Amino acid sequence: MRPKNHSRGKSSPRSAPTSSRGPQRSAGPRREPEIPKNWRAVAGTHALSEVFSVRPHQIKAFWLRQGWESSQDLRDLEEKARKARLTVETKPVAVLDRLCATHQGAVAYVDGRPTLDFDGLDSFKTSTVLLLDGIEDPHNLGAILRTGWLMGVNGLLIPEDRAVGLTPTVHKVACGGVEHVPVQETTHFQGSIETLKEKGYWVFGLSHKAKKTIFDLELPEKVVWAVGAEDKGLRVPTEKLCDELVSIPQLSAAASYNASVATAIALTETFRQQRRFRA
Amino acid sequence: MRPKNHSRGKSSPRSAPTSSRGPQRSAGPRREPEIPKNWRAVAGTHALSEVFSVRPHQIKAFWLRQGWESSQDLRDLEEKARKARLTVETKPVAVLDRLCATHQGAVAYVDGRPTLDFDGLDSFKTSTVLLLDGIEDPHNLGAILRTGWLMGVNGLLIPEDRAVGLTPTVHKVACGGVEHVPVQETTHFQGSIETLKEKGYWVFGLSHKAKKTIFDLELPEKVVWAVGAEDKGLRVPTEKLCDELVSIPQLSAAASYNASVATAIALTETFRQQRRFRA
Repeated sequence: MRPKNHSRGKSSPRSAPTSSRGPQRSAGPRREPEIPKNWRAVAGTHALSEVFSVRPHQIKAFWLRQGWESSQDLRDLEEKARKARLTVETKPVAVLDRLCATHQGAVAYVDGRPTLDFDGLDSFKTSTVLLLDGIEDPHNLGAILRTGWLMGVNGLLIPEDRAVGLTPTVHKVACGGVEHVPVQETTHFQGSIETLKEKGYWVFGLSHKAKKTIFDLELPEKVVWAVGAEDKGLRVPTEKLCDELVSIPQLSAAASYNASVATAIALTETFRQQRRFRA
Repeated sequence: MRPKNHSRGKSSPRSAPTSSRGPQRSAGPRREPEIPKNWRAVAGTHALSEVFSVRPHQIKAFWLRQGWESSQDLRDLEEKARKARLTVETKPVAVLDRLCATHQGAVAYVDGRPTLDFDGLDSFKTSTVLLLDGIEDPHNLGAILRTGWLMGVNGLLIPEDRAVGLTPTVHKVACGGVEHVPVQETTHFQGSIETLKEKGYWVFGLSHKAKKTIFDLELPEKVVWAVGAEDKGLRVPTEKLCDELVSIPQLSAAASYNASVATAIALTETFRQQRRFRA
């Protein structure tokens, strides 16, 4: 079964937020117009700066908090918005607070993001894909997207249910990573994993139960890392999809690595070994 | 100059919180008795579980939130407290909220923690020490202590001012790491670093400006990693203390690794290479 490409960014918006021609003042919370479901709410100054770099023309609405003029970061974003001929809407902080606790005063609605093109993966000589088996903490997913971007991860598989998706907080923490790492939401990992295996990927699962460690592993050119959820580890059906389970050495059994740190450790070793192929 | 051992955990308490013989009910916020400055406020169920394992007799006060009986994690902690013959005080959630936003219903005051014994470092054949140059985010310091514990970091140097210290949130995020990694607060890094250099340590600073990467580095047996603060990197005086600056490869210059992820990446490569010496 070939996983379908994600439909986000392709369907047309059914309704749009109202916009004013310039910064507007609003006395208090009011009913916001309906936002199309396929638009992403992106929060945070770093994340938005990257949206302006990568896909300025896909920004459908751009909100700054009241009093944005006093912040250099927000003034910089306002300038980028003007250059992109976008309408800047000034909103009470309470409106932004409802979307994300750490919005840093700026939110945009964006139509479109990178999608995982399974056939496109054939063009890579070395490649890494991540499978996150039910991460619930938006800080962990955001941190993984940030690290994954900088380490060149080619795709990220997450479950459609019982896991955090691409929330405004995830965007904020990812600092722009969502604009670069294709994220595929799926009801079952099996189809995607079978496709990847056919394409030459080997699937390694992180498990503290495994005797073999990531440092004992000679990694192939195409790698999928399966990482379990906080405190729970990989689910049995996901373990069964793995070619091999490996552990990260740890000097105490009383705790475990944070999911985003475990992912960074696995990616570090992968990056180090894959450089070998590039030389 | 030999850095003095940290005085925390050595001076005697000047006053103690009142305690009741059993869970007590309190109608609302009230004035808390003075807590000695050298006591650590530890929050979070994982962090407290580790305190009960490592130093139960140094717990001076133990608070659970009202309604703790409904939580399995809190019932487990209450049982550990009873076994350690500690008095459990039940507090309104608002009292715990004032200490830490994510206390998970449990806080303890603890007298004592591991201190950095510079002469004790001589007993290690391989060793890693971290210097954190002004980390302000408690989640980053906590995450570094968690990873540092599991990777066997022998000490952590942090500035006394303009950086986060061992707050309740840091304890919570570290999940027990504070009970194991000796943290030394210092007004100047120079004295500590000179002592470490005399003991055979080499000091490497993480800097995105460096051409040489951590993967080009053959690490010595005794390593200090200097890590800069969020967004700022290493300060010039700290850079001057380093024997060499190295970078972590990244595929975009538009962002940088989170400080705790950068530390985990450096520790991963150190751990991998230092295993060589153990074999």
